[in-house]
Amino acid sequence: MNILFIMYDQLRFDYLSCAGHPHLHTPNFDRVAAMGVRFDRAYVQSPVCGASRMSFYTGRYTSSHGATWNGYPLKVGELTLGDHLRDAGMQSWLIGKTHMTADVKGMQRLGIAADSMIGARVSECGFDVWIRDDGLWGEGPDGFYDQRRSPYNEYLKSKGYEAENPWHHNANSGVDEEGQTASGFLMRHAGKPANVHEEHSETPWLTDRTIDFIEEKRGQDTPWLAHVSYIKPHWPYIVPAPYHDMYGPEHVLPAVRDEAEKDDPHPVFDAFMNGRIGKAFQRDDVRDVVIPAYMGLIKQCDDQLGKLLDYLEDSDQLDSTMIVLTADHGDYLGDHWLGEKDLFHEPSVKVPMIIYDPRAEADSTRGTVCNALVESIDLAATFVEFAGGEVPDHILEGRSLLPWLQGQVPDNWREFAISEYDYSSQPHAQTLGLAARDCRLFMVTTERWKFMHAEGGLRPMLFDLQADPDEVNDLATDPVYAPVLSEMYERLAKWSRRMSQRTTMSDADIDARRGKSGRRGILLGVVDETDVSEEALVRYRGPAAGRP
Amino acid sequence: MNILFIMYDQLRFDYLSCAGHPHLHTPNFDRVAAMGVRFDRAYVQSPVCGASRMSFYTGRYTSSHGATWNGYPLKVGELTLGDHLRDAGMQSWLIGKTHMTADVKGMQRLGIAADSMIGARVSECGFDVWIRDDGLWGEGPDGFYDQRRSPYNEYLKSKGYEAENPWHHNANSGVDEEGQTASGFLMRHAGKPANVHEEHSETPWLTDRTIDFIEEKRGQDTPWLAHVSYIKPHWPYIVPAPYHDMYGPEHVLPAVRDEAEKDDPHPVFDAFMNGRIGKAFQRDDVRDVVIPAYMGLIKQCDDQLGKLLDYLEDSDQLDSTMIVLTADHGDYLGDHWLGEKDLFHEPSVKVPMIIYDPRAEADSTRGTVCNALVESIDLAATFVEFAGGEVPDHILEGRSLLPWLQGQVPDNWREFAISEYDYSSQPHAQTLGLAARDCRLFMVTTERWKFMHAEGGLRPMLFDLQADPDEVNDLATDPVYAPVLSEMYERLAKWSRRMSQRTTMSDADIDARRGKSGRRGILLGVVDETDVSEEALVRYRGPAAGRP
Repeated sequence: MNILFIMYDQLRFDYLSCAGHPHLHTPNFDRVAAMGVRFDRAYVQSPVCGASRMSFYTGRYTSSHGATWNGYPLKVGELTLGDHLRDAGMQSWLIGKTHMTADVKGMQRLGIAADSMIGARVSECGFDVWIRDDGLWGEGPDGFYDQRRSPYNEYLKSKGYEAENPWHHNANSGVDEEGQTASGFLMRHAGKPANVHEEHSETPWLTDRTIDFIEEKRGQDTPWLAHVSYIKPHWPYIVPAPYHDMYGPEHVLPAVRDEAEKDDPHPVFDAFMNGRIGKAFQRDDVRDVVIPAYMGLIKQCDDQLGKLLDYLEDSDQLDSTMIVLTADHGDYLGDHWLGEKDLFHEPSVKVPMIIYDPRAEADSTRGTVCNALVESIDLAATFVEFAGGEVPDHILEGRSLLPWLQGQVPDNWREFAISEYDYSSQPHAQTLGLAARDCRLFMVTTERWKFMHAEGGLRPMLFDLQADPDEVNDLATDPVYAPVLSEMYERLAKWSRRMSQRTTMSDADIDARRGKSGRRGILLGVVDETDVSEEALVRYRGPAAGRP
Repeated sequence: MNILFIMYDQLRFDYLSCAGHPHLHTPNFDRVAAMGVRFDRAYVQSPVCGASRMSFYTGRYTSSHGATWNGYPLKVGELTLGDHLRDAGMQSWLIGKTHMTADVKGMQRLGIAADSMIGARVSECGFDVWIRDDGLWGEGPDGFYDQRRSPYNEYLKSKGYEAENPWHHNANSGVDEEGQTASGFLMRHAGKPANVHEEHSETPWLTDRTIDFIEEKRGQDTPWLAHVSYIKPHWPYIVPAPYHDMYGPEHVLPAVRDEAEKDDPHPVFDAFMNGRIGKAFQRDDVRDVVIPAYMGLIKQCDDQLGKLLDYLEDSDQLDSTMIVLTADHGDYLGDHWLGEKDLFHEPSVKVPMIIYDPRAEADSTRGTVCNALVESIDLAATFVEFAGGEVPDHILEGRSLLPWLQGQVPDNWREFAISEYDYSSQPHAQTLGLAARDCRLFMVTTERWKFMHAEGGLRPMLFDLQADPDEVNDLATDPVYAPVLSEMYERLAKWSRRMSQRTTMSDADIDARRGKSGRRGILLGVVDETDVSEEALVRYRGPAAGRP
């Protein structure tokens, strides 16, 4: 049994037809949902690429692994999915994006060479690399955002694209009226077709690499997990023909926003609303061109998913492959006067999570929707269990979702989900005049309530998801809700006290050693021979050793 | 400038004449106190050897480093005092005990050989080893408690002691009336002289090794920290002549305990009171023989400290050596119906902390007592600053004490001190029917209040240190104190949300990179050319790259 762990970057939970989008038809996502379970309340551990992904890959909260934002290196000592799966006899391969930054200092301290097998794995958060391409080949006066070689740029060049950076000039730009590059980074160009043949664009390219990988592995005995990690529908918002004009302003849903949100908003919310990104997505002309491009990118993802599913079916591998479809975070797209991700409203922090388990045990749940509170860290535990390993619950902080797939309701399932956000690298840190360490937000969501705590002495936010599913009425300043806030703070406190770092000893290790020191001669509270067994004393008996 | 970081194991804060003991005269501890500052409210991060020491050596709370009990390995990725001091150009040497257990699995995962320089350091929590001897050569039916070679046993053998385990049969046992070994593990023998020449016993042995070390280093340029870490006055409670009969029952202070403590006690407190150790120390006959031996061990420590101070003075090194005297935890000795350490009453969790800084900047505070709330993790930051390094406050969780030594009151000094205790390896975990992960206690102490939270759904404890300095009236169940409890829970929550794992990025690293991604081509919220500088777009300009 293998695992295809497919991640889309910045895919909103509700931009799929199976999740109710009225205009965007995604038959292939829907097909997996019909084969498996769609989790309707899946939250990421942080609504930003890097931190979220490090949580998926370590199975741990962001404040546990410490890589709390893009480019903050993951500590060399953090165990990853790759470590746990290899222990369970499963390979762990990367095809695409991780946003991982290696802990170079930590590696130097421990004498780990980057080009050794071990060094390569810890540099790639535990994966063996089939393809690593983060899809962020932005380039400015200080050089490239990403310092690595770009397999995708090399691919485009091999196909005859002649620009220095065809990722930008072809795949992520259009052409203007004068024949000049119309960069996809300028959102006014979002409606143009990208200057690339569709089959050479990023999503088909990665799909083809995935099929290459599976072909290469066919017939080999060792099971594998492949993390197929697409950069799309992430910005730049531009898509090749024919996807660029499949949708228009008539398919753009009204922004979920309310003037009341601008009335004495939470200071962090306010800073984001008034930032450049928020301001841009408050414009209808921007939404009307960006959202259709975003939908086109998703439609292309869906078609490519179809290609992959057909390949698996045609090659008789669908019965032996778990398929997971998810995202690292969503996209505000103008909802709540915001763009991008970062905060904890549903369009940002909730993600699609569809799991197909091919085994007969999962037959009873096929095509169902599960509304349990799920966290992205649950996937690591799910994969370890699926691989036949024992979930190391002193390291992994999530829980296996397999029982849900098998129609069981696990005991003591969580009553609240957590997400965290470190905005210390954002300009808003300065706007708010906060030290980097105080730029931390915590979300606690129960079935009914969503709560945000902000460090730095700022007030909380509170939404009643039942009465106000659109999350436009912040109740935190209304004294009526003081008892709810108090409960939410209590939940946050309980979670904050969790044991996250005792990772060298499991509960079972401890149970096995408890009380054993007495049998190694450590006799405490022993007054005389009546307090202890003959056996315990045997090495302490005999004539007194003389002195020289 | 060098540092002698001297630790005694299980030395109570109040068993020194400078701290007010009426019968135990410790002129050499007092001499250092007169040369420096005695911190009167210094708390360890956990009242148990291993966890406490790992906090001293990492400068981090036990729930941050994860080595929460004796023998729980310190993660290979945790940085230590040795790492930070070497960065500041200071060597870091170990002479004595650490209770460190290497993270063998973690080392294997990262390919670190135990016999490499790097492997040796991470196995010894960052120290270079002059002598490592934990002084726990207990031996039972399952073998030795400590699997290493014992330098001290080898020393005794070299001096002609012929027993297989002279640590036990000589240094830690007496001789009974029949000429048989009278093991110091049986407390009824505590009054006997240990069967060893005083100059061969553990404390003089380690003092001599320390002087050897300093002699070896004299004239070398690189400054050093030496962690001189005595096993005494830790059990077995037995001491060689003449120290074995310097004190008698007439010098034993009454136990600080009250019948009221047994009335509906906190379940964890109750379990410890009813354990073998608690029961033994409730007996006056046990206290009357054990406490004089404990005092004799301390008296010997004091005499050996005098030898070391005289050596430093005679060799003109007293002006160039910072001296720190402290302990990893205290000893209940029957107070509160308990023996040993483990819980958070002052005799267990508060430690001696005397710091002599030879530099002129510290002249104004010599001989003073400081009652600021100090945590053991403050020492690591103190040493880094003393060594001339910059305190990496995204890794070290304590604060430098140097300002206090220089008569300054640092801004925003902590208003509460924290300690933690993981009793999962204790039999009480089973008595209470708790899972290992729920066997966790947290102490929060302010100037006035001491609070304990217990995981596993147990109630808290609360003492008013002003009204009840003996800590015999637990106020936690009295509704009058609900507001105080609530404040203490709020303090615990605030501390629990601390940022402890973002250790690969400092605040300064973040400030330096903030806003830089735009200069590497990541343009967000940009609608058209008016939103962004010409320079930012320069790499994105030019005629559109053709397609093949």
